Amino acid sequence: MADVIEILKKYSEDVDKEIEEALSTLEPSSLFESSGHLIKAGGKKFRPALTVLSCQAVGGETDKALKTAAALELIHTFSLIHDDIMDNDDTRRGMPAVHKKWGEPLAILAGDTLFAKAYETIIKTADENIAYERVIDALRVLVDSCIKICEGQALDMAFEDSFEVTKDEYMNMIYKKTGALITGATTAGAIIGGATSFQKQQLDLYGRKIGLAFQIQDDYIDLTGDESIGKPVGSDLVEGKKTLMVVYALEKANEEDHDRLIELLSAGNESIIPEAMDILNKYGAINYARSVAYDCVIEAKEALMTLPNTEARDSLMKLADFVFTRNA
Amino acid sequence: MADVIEILKKYSEDVDKEIEEALSTLEPSSLFESSGHLIKAGGKKFRPALTVLSCQAVGGETDKALKTAAALELIHTFSLIHDDIMDNDDTRRGMPAVHKKWGEPLAILAGDTLFAKAYETIIKTADENIAYERVIDALRVLVDSCIKICEGQALDMAFEDSFEVTKDEYMNMIYKKTGALITGATTAGAIIGGATSFQKQQLDLYGRKIGLAFQIQDDYIDLTGDESIGKPVGSDLVEGKKTLMVVYALEKANEEDHDRLIELLSAGNESIIPEAMDILNKYGAINYARSVAYDCVIEAKEALMTLPNTEARDSLMKLADFVFTRNA
Repeated sequence: MADVIEILKKYSEDVDKEIEEALSTLEPSSLFESSGHLIKAGGKKFRPALTVLSCQAVGGETDKALKTAAALELIHTFSLIHDDIMDNDDTRRGMPAVHKKWGEPLAILAGDTLFAKAYETIIKTADENIAYERVIDALRVLVDSCIKICEGQALDMAFEDSFEVTKDEYMNMIYKKTGALITGATTAGAIIGGATSFQKQQLDLYGRKIGLAFQIQDDYIDLTGDESIGKPVGSDLVEGKKTLMVVYALEKANEEDHDRLIELLSAGNESIIPEAMDILNKYGAINYARSVAYDCVIEAKEALMTLPNTEARDSLMKLADFVFTRNA
Repeated sequence: MADVIEILKKYSEDVDKEIEEALSTLEPSSLFESSGHLIKAGGKKFRPALTVLSCQAVGGETDKALKTAAALELIHTFSLIHDDIMDNDDTRRGMPAVHKKWGEPLAILAGDTLFAKAYETIIKTADENIAYERVIDALRVLVDSCIKICEGQALDMAFEDSFEVTKDEYMNMIYKKTGALITGATTAGAIIGGATSFQKQQLDLYGRKIGLAFQIQDDYIDLTGDESIGKPVGSDLVEGKKTLMVVYALEKANEEDHDRLIELLSAGNESIIPEAMDILNKYGAINYARSVAYDCVIEAKEALMTLPNTEARDSLMKLADFVFTRNA
């Protein structure tokens, strides 16, 4: 774990500098401050690390990937700001959510601003001796990620009213909601680093698989984590979210348990958590989700093994494990 | 006016086809429908027309500008959807606003989706035999417009609490809020069309000037238009908006009228409209705003006169006049 923290920290200052520079000219001060709020609050910087490491893993120079890495973090932050409005969440990274501090109108604008700044930042890569074609390719990947994020979020919302979500539908939803930007991070890094088409494909696969594992782990933490990380345990059950655990249990349960689980998930209050957990456990839903996430991590690491043996590849291996072992 | 309607209509079907294609793959259906809602409702298609005509005016081919034109309309529509949430407006283009029909969360997502789709669409221009450098240049212009739109909207909001807005501050705000995307439309069209650096500069100037006139005219219509176009006359006064008329009157009025106008604009109800109008008229504020807009149109047309004499230039001339004469 200490290793992973070091990997994530290694370029985070450089990335922060790029972001700070990108936001420095914003006016008025209300927009400048609201846009920078969550960036200042920290965050793991997981996606920028993936971008830099993917660039390095195919032999690219670190410096050339920093703006793309910053763009990834800007897109991630934009999506957090808008998600918090949509989910009406009060806090993020231990701070008040942007819309809680500045109101919804400015929070919508702050998100939009970061979204545009992400593209501005990656386009500036074109001034750094990187072929236009690569910049356009990286942009294509990022835009595609952004569209998928919106689709994934809309699917997640649509699933709230349905109890017939299949595993395939769930995997498609989390690939879009969470996996697409993680895939975008690895693939854009690979492109900027000058990856061959095979290398790009492998880093795309790696990103896709750890992205899926990342979201499954998020849902697992929600059920089993401790409250100290900010979110109350079991909040996804209260909100009726269709996590892999719920999807699996609804599929495997006998009629009585199936109908009871639907009843519990529809209640919308915390008192249902223990009984809902019992049903999930009865059908081994939590172990099942763990095994799916584990398989994803294995596949991600297999994809990496096709790349040259470098320190960057080693770090990406550790990040794949981290996705499955983290508890926050 | 019949002329102008024809100019605006000429490529609107082609642009709509590009947009339709761009949105066709969206899932789930709620996101597909909410994203397409305002596009289907119509709109003048003023910005895409500027893009196509600017491309033609520098000798570019119409077909090559269509995706860029569609991107402009997508950005414009994204900003309308988010603006309507921020301003809590109920209707747009004679239809319920997106957030009124699908709720705020989905409306935020629909806007974000169109924003991303705009970039996807313009990046596809790279597949149409247009040099990567031009595509990147056009992207740079559009991203810059998007950042300015956010800043302009935030400035407009910040000005609501201030009665010391100067004319320069006002002009900067409307340049960003409204002018930047109109400038983006002309400049991106010029770039895709292969403009020389001088031609690009002139079409940028043209866009900037008609953009300013466009917003001043919008504010003028709010004070003098008829209710049939949807918005109640004088709503900007009720909302305490710092229009050029208000900025000018506050600057020119004697102390008594100055203080009274502030009182009226702070009241937040419709009964203040007649008295506020009297003060604006007493100091010639409405005529002043008209003359500023008129001067902008003249400067815009002077910039155009440096371009070759073509049908496209002629159409751009007519659109400049339209900006000043339209009443909706």
